[in-house]
Amino acid sequence: MQQFMNSRESLVTEAIDGLLRTAGGKLARLDGYPHIKVVVRSDWDRSKVALVSGGGSGHEPSHAGFVGQGMLTAAVCGDVFASPSVDAVLAGILAVTGKAGCLLIVKNYTGDRLNFGLAAERARAFGLKVSMVIVDDDIALPDLPQARGVAGTLFVHKIAGAMAEGGADLDAVTAAAQAVIKGAISIGMSLDTCTVPGSPKEDRIGPGKAELGLGIHGEAGIEQVDFTGAKSAMAKVAGRLLPHTGAGDHVALLNNLGGTTPLEMSVLAEELARSPLGERVKWMIGPAPLMTSLDMHGFSVSLLAVDQAQVAHLAAPVAVHAWPGLAAFGAVAVRPLPDGLAPIQPVASSHPARRALIERCCKALIACEADLNLLDAKSGDGDTGSTLAGAARALHAALDRLPLADPTQLYRAIGSELSQTMGGSSGVLLAIFFAAAGDASASGKTWIGALGAGLDRVMQVGGAAPGHRTMIDALAPALAALPQGVALAAKAARDGANATAHMTRAKAGRASYLAADKLAGHNDPGAEGVARLLEDLARG
Amino acid sequence: MQQFMNSRESLVTEAIDGLLRTAGGKLARLDGYPHIKVVVRSDWDRSKVALVSGGGSGHEPSHAGFVGQGMLTAAVCGDVFASPSVDAVLAGILAVTGKAGCLLIVKNYTGDRLNFGLAAERARAFGLKVSMVIVDDDIALPDLPQARGVAGTLFVHKIAGAMAEGGADLDAVTAAAQAVIKGAISIGMSLDTCTVPGSPKEDRIGPGKAELGLGIHGEAGIEQVDFTGAKSAMAKVAGRLLPHTGAGDHVALLNNLGGTTPLEMSVLAEELARSPLGERVKWMIGPAPLMTSLDMHGFSVSLLAVDQAQVAHLAAPVAVHAWPGLAAFGAVAVRPLPDGLAPIQPVASSHPARRALIERCCKALIACEADLNLLDAKSGDGDTGSTLAGAARALHAALDRLPLADPTQLYRAIGSELSQTMGGSSGVLLAIFFAAAGDASASGKTWIGALGAGLDRVMQVGGAAPGHRTMIDALAPALAALPQGVALAAKAARDGANATAHMTRAKAGRASYLAADKLAGHNDPGAEGVARLLEDLARG
Repeated sequence: MQQFMNSRESLVTEAIDGLLRTAGGKLARLDGYPHIKVVVRSDWDRSKVALVSGGGSGHEPSHAGFVGQGMLTAAVCGDVFASPSVDAVLAGILAVTGKAGCLLIVKNYTGDRLNFGLAAERARAFGLKVSMVIVDDDIALPDLPQARGVAGTLFVHKIAGAMAEGGADLDAVTAAAQAVIKGAISIGMSLDTCTVPGSPKEDRIGPGKAELGLGIHGEAGIEQVDFTGAKSAMAKVAGRLLPHTGAGDHVALLNNLGGTTPLEMSVLAEELARSPLGERVKWMIGPAPLMTSLDMHGFSVSLLAVDQAQVAHLAAPVAVHAWPGLAAFGAVAVRPLPDGLAPIQPVASSHPARRALIERCCKALIACEADLNLLDAKSGDGDTGSTLAGAARALHAALDRLPLADPTQLYRAIGSELSQTMGGSSGVLLAIFFAAAGDASASGKTWIGALGAGLDRVMQVGGAAPGHRTMIDALAPALAALPQGVALAAKAARDGANATAHMTRAKAGRASYLAADKLAGHNDPGAEGVARLLEDLARG
Repeated sequence: MQQFMNSRESLVTEAIDGLLRTAGGKLARLDGYPHIKVVVRSDWDRSKVALVSGGGSGHEPSHAGFVGQGMLTAAVCGDVFASPSVDAVLAGILAVTGKAGCLLIVKNYTGDRLNFGLAAERARAFGLKVSMVIVDDDIALPDLPQARGVAGTLFVHKIAGAMAEGGADLDAVTAAAQAVIKGAISIGMSLDTCTVPGSPKEDRIGPGKAELGLGIHGEAGIEQVDFTGAKSAMAKVAGRLLPHTGAGDHVALLNNLGGTTPLEMSVLAEELARSPLGERVKWMIGPAPLMTSLDMHGFSVSLLAVDQAQVAHLAAPVAVHAWPGLAAFGAVAVRPLPDGLAPIQPVASSHPARRALIERCCKALIACEADLNLLDAKSGDGDTGSTLAGAARALHAALDRLPLADPTQLYRAIGSELSQTMGGSSGVLLAIFFAAAGDASASGKTWIGALGAGLDRVMQVGGAAPGHRTMIDALAPALAALPQGVALAAKAARDGANATAHMTRAKAGRASYLAADKLAGHNDPGAEGVARLLEDLARG
């Protein structure tokens, strides 16, 4: 058993109980386990026409998931893919039917027809008004007069549900349901079979194939077709449906058969819009799992040509979460990109002292390229020196473009330069460092205070802190000491860098994935780079 | 490629467009395909704090599915399992942020932290107020200070969303988000890996095993554990979460990682209620797909100890279908079975003429048992004769119990007897026939008219009609002729039965699955039985 269940026997009863626990008190079940599995509205007063549906389980959220105000009054659940018994259906009818009567909505399978049909007879013997409609929306098997009932059943639930909720009488609700059944068409496609709990999985659909016109109980499709992607898949489905469509605007119901990801379902919605059906479909229900077949990796499309009243009924609000609502099926709304995505190009300006400082920093980093690479090779891929030196060369080359006279703009420009020239995380982190420093400078911080603000932001964004064996172990104490002069800052950076040699468990960055013995005795190359830089500056 | 997509490159953009088409006009996207994939509320006026989230795709409905009133203002979507770029995040921020500012809700992955972090810096350089929070709810990796952000992120989206919608300022929304992040804990379990589009599926989890503490990008779990069913699975998950829970009432978020069926998710909800966590959990979000990992066959449980304000924010209405709402997590409501499930036992009464008629019918059917079996062997399993004879014997044995003096009750009692003694479809169909005849008799039909009503109901429920090669081909013309006397009825039945020999394509019942050459020249055994019965009666 590789499914989240306890036993095949308890699967459906435990699932119903789980559903009831999370239904917020709106649902109850009858006390008939294990044979009678009936979910009823707990807020039902029998004053209106009751709607009872059901059938085998394995089609969730159908049918228990659609019990609630505005849709079903009760769902009679069989075991997986097995019709419920006459007694179970009768219990459901008796539990919810008042003077206004009851409509049974039954999918066209022999077991369901017979069990619901006999239950209806027995209920009528009690003097109850019971109608029954048989949904047969599947168009996959054109020669069989007994078309199956599949996801188009949801049209019936919703429209009949809205009418019953609105107070229509049993004859009117039944007639409306019959009209929907006459118009509803569906067909499904799948890339794989479903996994029936407790049974081995059938391996029927080969690679590169899809099954078209399958049922919802794992029964084989009408044919296997080549599968070459979502576009051609939807084109095949649309091609089968089109000859059955009538005039007028249609509602489409795009049903996830269970195992299709939301990404795929959305792609299929897009392909439905692009298909020849697209122009006919004015409203959409889904994509959503509505009438599933356990974990089947497939979908179905149901169509209904609708009048205004039917659209209103489909759009009427319901207290049923599994119902995805009716949405206009429209064009993709596209808005222009906002201004400001291109980095601001500051006006270059001159400031000889700052230019000299930056040049010196760049040269210092370039000078220790080989040493830092060697150090990085002990614990990483040996490129820390080259990364920092590359950034230094790029910054040096950009000196003529920088707004050297304006500290705020200068910090931001350095960040922008580095983010464009350095790859990977380091570039982004240094860009964040200098951008945050620029912000702090703009709000009045000193140049040292601004660098401290940059460090804070890097620690927040990058998630590293002192002690994590990163360049922060040198940078943080250096910035803290910098107001006392560059010599003390250099000393603090050196102490911080050397301390990283004893941090044998890196807690951030790539080294966090390395074993302790690979790290012991070696300084972190980033921290070492910071120390070398400040020691160079301290030499005056 | 065995997924409903067209190409890996177009997967996310086509999926977003599909989502927008079915969003009923409430969503738009920025014109930045393919690199900038940003979904925004189309009903947004920038008057309140904007909430921007996002990250790699493959977690649907996160994040684009949670854009809407009361939750996110924009979602920035990367490619599958890949962080969006700085430019994409910046575009999202700029598109929705007004004077009230913007909160970035980021899951704790390096790529997301850095790209969202740098985008925030660039947005701040435009003078925008931007806060950022990092969600780190995963408890799977206890030693790593950089806990991942997983489904607990939804707590943040919802609570921050409700506060922003309510007009709270950026500092208040940010502080509330931080408080949620501090309290939220999550862990996941899966029975299989996910299928990354365009990549071969990793076969990492063996039969009988489950992975505990996995991430949402296909990364391996912290350990593989034995899987023995839903109960022990939830017990393991609960055992990991319990030490991290604080005092007070908790909200649980039960997340489908993608490929778990609703049946399984409901069983897991039930097991959560039965677990040691059950008493702590007062409210539930889900079960639902909220933060998925493509088609991963797994689930996660997130917990948050909540105060009254947080409960109110979690329960606040949203215009976002993918949000399943907050429900009280309670006991299973059970109602007693309705009266009337046991068949009504009528009072026996006597009517010599009717008793004689029934006896004669029974004997006639018993007499042709062998002939009908032989006929059925041509096209079926050779038991039609035994089935009808068995029913006749049972009915004959019940004669003393039948309410022979009351036609209405007699019909119903015959139906009830037959449904209890005959197996399969035939028993149910005959039970429906006689039950409907009883109803018709009760409403004043003659005894022949009542039988006609029974036939109508059987045709409706069973879906067979004259010409379908069933017993109806004899029964329908016989009942039509019966008012003219039993001799004519017998003739009509005989003609009808003989006509079935030329119906080489059965349209209902089991024979519909047989080839024409197996049927040609043989009467349908059910129709033949009807003819024999009436011929016997006609002999006087």
